[in-house]
Amino acid sequence: MDIKNNILKNNLQHEFMKGTFGLEREALRVHEDGRIALTDHPHILGNRSYHETISTDFSEAQPELITPVCHSVDDMYKQMQALEKVMMLSLPQDEYLWTYSMPAILPEDESLIPIVRVEDQSQITYREGLAERYGKRKQMISGMHFNFGFKKELIEGLSSTDPFKDYGVQTISNMIHMKLARNFIRYRWLLTYLFGGVPTAHSSFYDKESDSVDYHVRSMRSSPLGYHNALPRQVSYASIEDYVDDILTMVADGTLSQEREFYGSARPRGTESIAGLAEKGVQYIELRSLDNNPYSMTGLSRDQLHFTHLYCLLMVWMDEDDASTEALELGTHMNEQSGLERPQEESEYKEEGLYLLKLMQDMVDELNLDSYYKDLVTRALDEMEDPAQTLAYRVSKSIEEAGSLVDFGMDIAQNFKQEYLKTPYILDGYEKMEMSTQMLMFDALQKGINLEVLDESDQFVRLEHNGREEYVQKGNKTAKDNYVSQLMMANKTVTKIVLDEHDFIVPKDESFTSLEDAKAFYPVIAEKSIVVKPKTTNYGIGITVFAEPASQEDYIEALTIAFSEDDSILIEEYIAGTEYRFFVVDGKTRAVLLREPAHVVGDGKHSIQELVSQKNDDPLRGEGHRSPLEKIQIGPSELLTLKEQKLTVEDVPAENQTVYLRTTSNISTGGDSIDFTEQMDASYKNIAGQISDALGAKVSGIDLIIPDYKHVSQADEPGYYCLEANFNPAMHMHMYVADGEGQRVTLDILNLLFPELKLLEE
Amino acid sequence: MDIKNNILKNNLQHEFMKGTFGLEREALRVHEDGRIALTDHPHILGNRSYHETISTDFSEAQPELITPVCHSVDDMYKQMQALEKVMMLSLPQDEYLWTYSMPAILPEDESLIPIVRVEDQSQITYREGLAERYGKRKQMISGMHFNFGFKKELIEGLSSTDPFKDYGVQTISNMIHMKLARNFIRYRWLLTYLFGGVPTAHSSFYDKESDSVDYHVRSMRSSPLGYHNALPRQVSYASIEDYVDDILTMVADGTLSQEREFYGSARPRGTESIAGLAEKGVQYIELRSLDNNPYSMTGLSRDQLHFTHLYCLLMVWMDEDDASTEALELGTHMNEQSGLERPQEESEYKEEGLYLLKLMQDMVDELNLDSYYKDLVTRALDEMEDPAQTLAYRVSKSIEEAGSLVDFGMDIAQNFKQEYLKTPYILDGYEKMEMSTQMLMFDALQKGINLEVLDESDQFVRLEHNGREEYVQKGNKTAKDNYVSQLMMANKTVTKIVLDEHDFIVPKDESFTSLEDAKAFYPVIAEKSIVVKPKTTNYGIGITVFAEPASQEDYIEALTIAFSEDDSILIEEYIAGTEYRFFVVDGKTRAVLLREPAHVVGDGKHSIQELVSQKNDDPLRGEGHRSPLEKIQIGPSELLTLKEQKLTVEDVPAENQTVYLRTTSNISTGGDSIDFTEQMDASYKNIAGQISDALGAKVSGIDLIIPDYKHVSQADEPGYYCLEANFNPAMHMHMYVADGEGQRVTLDILNLLFPELKLLEE
Repeated sequence: MDIKNNILKNNLQHEFMKGTFGLEREALRVHEDGRIALTDHPHILGNRSYHETISTDFSEAQPELITPVCHSVDDMYKQMQALEKVMMLSLPQDEYLWTYSMPAILPEDESLIPIVRVEDQSQITYREGLAERYGKRKQMISGMHFNFGFKKELIEGLSSTDPFKDYGVQTISNMIHMKLARNFIRYRWLLTYLFGGVPTAHSSFYDKESDSVDYHVRSMRSSPLGYHNALPRQVSYASIEDYVDDILTMVADGTLSQEREFYGSARPRGTESIAGLAEKGVQYIELRSLDNNPYSMTGLSRDQLHFTHLYCLLMVWMDEDDASTEALELGTHMNEQSGLERPQEESEYKEEGLYLLKLMQDMVDELNLDSYYKDLVTRALDEMEDPAQTLAYRVSKSIEEAGSLVDFGMDIAQNFKQEYLKTPYILDGYEKMEMSTQMLMFDALQKGINLEVLDESDQFVRLEHNGREEYVQKGNKTAKDNYVSQLMMANKTVTKIVLDEHDFIVPKDESFTSLEDAKAFYPVIAEKSIVVKPKTTNYGIGITVFAEPASQEDYIEALTIAFSEDDSILIEEYIAGTEYRFFVVDGKTRAVLLREPAHVVGDGKHSIQELVSQKNDDPLRGEGHRSPLEKIQIGPSELLTLKEQKLTVEDVPAENQTVYLRTTSNISTGGDSIDFTEQMDASYKNIAGQISDALGAKVSGIDLIIPDYKHVSQADEPGYYCLEANFNPAMHMHMYVADGEGQRVTLDILNLLFPELKLLEE
Repeated sequence: MDIKNNILKNNLQHEFMKGTFGLEREALRVHEDGRIALTDHPHILGNRSYHETISTDFSEAQPELITPVCHSVDDMYKQMQALEKVMMLSLPQDEYLWTYSMPAILPEDESLIPIVRVEDQSQITYREGLAERYGKRKQMISGMHFNFGFKKELIEGLSSTDPFKDYGVQTISNMIHMKLARNFIRYRWLLTYLFGGVPTAHSSFYDKESDSVDYHVRSMRSSPLGYHNALPRQVSYASIEDYVDDILTMVADGTLSQEREFYGSARPRGTESIAGLAEKGVQYIELRSLDNNPYSMTGLSRDQLHFTHLYCLLMVWMDEDDASTEALELGTHMNEQSGLERPQEESEYKEEGLYLLKLMQDMVDELNLDSYYKDLVTRALDEMEDPAQTLAYRVSKSIEEAGSLVDFGMDIAQNFKQEYLKTPYILDGYEKMEMSTQMLMFDALQKGINLEVLDESDQFVRLEHNGREEYVQKGNKTAKDNYVSQLMMANKTVTKIVLDEHDFIVPKDESFTSLEDAKAFYPVIAEKSIVVKPKTTNYGIGITVFAEPASQEDYIEALTIAFSEDDSILIEEYIAGTEYRFFVVDGKTRAVLLREPAHVVGDGKHSIQELVSQKNDDPLRGEGHRSPLEKIQIGPSELLTLKEQKLTVEDVPAENQTVYLRTTSNISTGGDSIDFTEQMDASYKNIAGQISDALGAKVSGIDLIIPDYKHVSQADEPGYYCLEANFNPAMHMHMYVADGEGQRVTLDILNLLFPELKLLEE
């Protein structure tokens, strides 16, 4: 089965590199002192009966993060980054994630280790059986599972050529995946050498002191001290049929309680029950021998993941393929030995390791892969030559330096949590996506709604629950809204016609399609306060406000600006008052926001410059729209604004004196967002909801000018003007505010899409 | 009640110019020989029980076109243009519209004049009463009604100042509108002088020969020979209360059969029943004394409409205001006398006419109106001085020249119809709107769905039937489609993911977000046929097709082009075959189109140049996308295409030889649209419908590549590839095709929006 040459001959390199990928990561919830948490799995993480990506493994204290099926290593990595971020931010204040494979401090009384508390009793019964047979402590070891399968494009590409063309696609797929599994078992020791990261365990892990070893090893988890099946014989990997037969026999004779109790290092997967695996075909191989890298937030670093992918490819690419059980047993023996080696020691199997890595180097060349892959192999070769460069050595050193495993582990755990808490508004892995989308994705992941990013640059995601799919673009464009409603909102003329007909209060306006006509309108507005705006923009672009009557020259300038944005413009009466943004979902106002221009409040001691600097220290303030608020700049506009107030940055404002550095309230120029959801009178919240309904919108941002937010709106004294209705309203600004409590409006969107989940308490 | 000075003082000129406007136009359906049609009102015009804009007046042969309430004269004019176009195109082949106020040839036996044939028996009974009291012939006179009301902005503006501030807004409105009505009745003779256009009547109009006059007059309709109420006394216009009292009294004492039998030249309107008029307030005045201008397709020309508006303003602006019945009776007398004057005669009331027009000139100045209005008044002054410039004189001359009234009228009727039939794809008045929108509007007007253009430049219309409103932008963006479905179609990656998951056949692709990555992909596609395309355009922009494998240089060029359109691009496998566009509504294919590059078919006699010229004579071919097909140009591209075939424009192709002048099939470069709705195998029509459903779309354009449209699609031999799904698909190209029968897909859209009207026979 010369796969390598068939790939090269048929130009299938590209197809060979494709695959389906998945990653599973276990960890432990612990307290600050390193004791495992006996608390419940965080309730904020929704319901484990359907949460497919954040669940628990053996113990209630043992979260398990599971990426969905991904189509590239990088996608998988991002998914795990995101899950880790969600997990971390879902922990109670006094809990942390222990990222080291061997457990943190376990209760002295093993029975206190909490088995999962779920509704499904069979889950508990199964775990009680495991606890009985293996002991609870062993179940608390955490590890990484790497799932990898080849795509049908490769299999189909191979199927047309010798020697494959006599087989069906199904059979070829089974053959290739079984070769991967076999060779992985035989050669997995190398990954343990390179990626082993568990030199020792905490004393509470051992039943009795004598079980422990008093020196550091490469991977205690992979060593005989780890957690393994004690099976009377090796399961065959010669073919998928043999494999299935062996497992089913062991279940039948009671050697295994269930199929899933078989903890082989490489498990062929593809069907829910193993019985159908040969017939339905192996879809992927689950590789289970990888230790948690304690330094990596995702359990395995991106480099490790790519290297593991290369390793999988190599297992299929290489000529070697010994299907005998002896070969598998040899592989297991070598892996255990490798795990037991001291971190600073050269590998006993260095020669085979170098051979494998050089094969890999050749493969990388023949696949024409870029320098990133070449560097991965080079580094592995270096580590093969120099044990001090391995992860195991580095972890071992760090533990020694920290003084104890717990100090080492808790130091990392605290740093991780601290780091994550700095940017609650960022969903790691998807930092490039729009903030509102990141927050929606965060909530979906937290609540167990399945999430797929269909197009990252287009902010296009798919959510799924219980078989029902909902597509979301840009955070809140969904199928719940209709096509024409957003077009109505985009067109200010149409918006006004409709709102006026519904007796909502809108500023009067005139629309123009020619500059000449608009110029001729000057006498009518010469003594009025007006706003000049293009007809169809959804943002503030091209708008000029004349709170004081405009000179003819300024008026014409404003017309020119507006016409540069649109063929049609509006001259609207200017309404004085404070503008609030109402975020409306399904006719209900869910958040109210006031935006204030960039400003500082004096304390009688610090200069404006210093006050700005202090304000900019807020972690919510960043640069380039990557955070909910922007840092206040001190540039020409700000200096001019100060100058008009006869101020300089050196001046020290009096206590409680507010100094504005900008005249416009845009968040993007350092403005503050202030939550007004509670304060705003209910009458205006109702009106905003009704406006949204009148436009047929499910999700909208309604801008109202309200002189007095405490005055109750009445028919004869409405107390508001509706300036605009906005489709696809920004959400992040409501969630992380400069002042007041943020409103998690992304949850409102999820609730709109999946009301059956009852995500909101009402 | 010094309205003028109040307007000037309070700067209300702009508000004074605003108004609500409506126009009603009666005409007669006639045959080629001038006999009125005894046929049914065209059934294609829907159901008169709800058709508000095209209905019938007294007779079944007497269509009445009624604009909805408009907010400017120009809007009203456009609406009437559109209605006239629809009416004309709805006539049977052998019928015409008689545009002259006095009837065409009536049946000798008056009883044969058909009263309307409608379901509502009370309508018929009312008309039978009129026939009895006035005779059927008089009922066949057609006229124009001009409805005008001031807007609340003016009334509210006035209400804050003396002497108005003691009255409520309602009262002021009533006062102003009644002044308009009074003065109009008093001074309407001037409009009869200027716009009178009915010098004579056909002999069949008279009961007996002796009734006729043997000379031409200004307006037979306005003269005592026309159709008037014979009331025992003048109805009062002193106040709305008096007016209502008088009418109700006359109905009560049997002088009038119904309120609506009162044919006053100016009727205050605002409520369905006259009783509530004083209380609810006069909304507008219906001016009824205007003759049809036989030369104008809209009954009154645009200039006449604007002048009439000015005239209405003048009636309110002027100081004169005599509320006595004597003044009204004088006005009626002067009008009748004016109507009886000979067209070539100076007016008996010339002096008053010049006085009024000079007042109007002053008003135009004081309102600061532009030269268009000034010119209107100047022209009227000229006509006052010189009767030979009046419409009546011109019509009179033309009738004489034509030899008979029937010849004159039928000549106009035939020319109008011929002119309209040339451009069935244009809705007059809305020529600037997109073709698909014009066609949808045409259908709505034809079928009696109420139509309002909310924003012409944005192609935004509102349809209404039976109280239910539907908004439509760009012809088929409606609330029936959801917001995210079109975003899915706009994003080719997402489209493919979804279609692939639903097992539809889509070309394979790879997406790239960086030029470097896309360049590096070259080895994979070096020997393949591919298409390079930006990810999110809905048109053909930025797409390069490599039917033959691309050179690396060309490949990079294509990448650069695609990236200039979008941040993400796709490299897609190229599929050979013929591309068809399927127009799908609600899961059903309603039209299939094949587009062919610009070409001519030889006849063995004419040169390519001549054949192109012949083909371009098709009235469906125009320039600048204002017609369904474009004229074939002979420019550099065409010459190059010919050159590559070793041809010049002078060559004479053999009979049935097809010569292509372009390689791409765009309609915009002279390509042909060929209807394939019937020929296409049903299996593909079903597939296109299912694709649309899978994307959640109600209206879409599905592009399928199909090598053999007769082959029945089967699971193992699907016979198609889905290239793209398009939202907001063009409709006009399906409706007016170069070959085959057009499919009226705009009706499908209306049927989707208003299924209760059952517009489609299924």
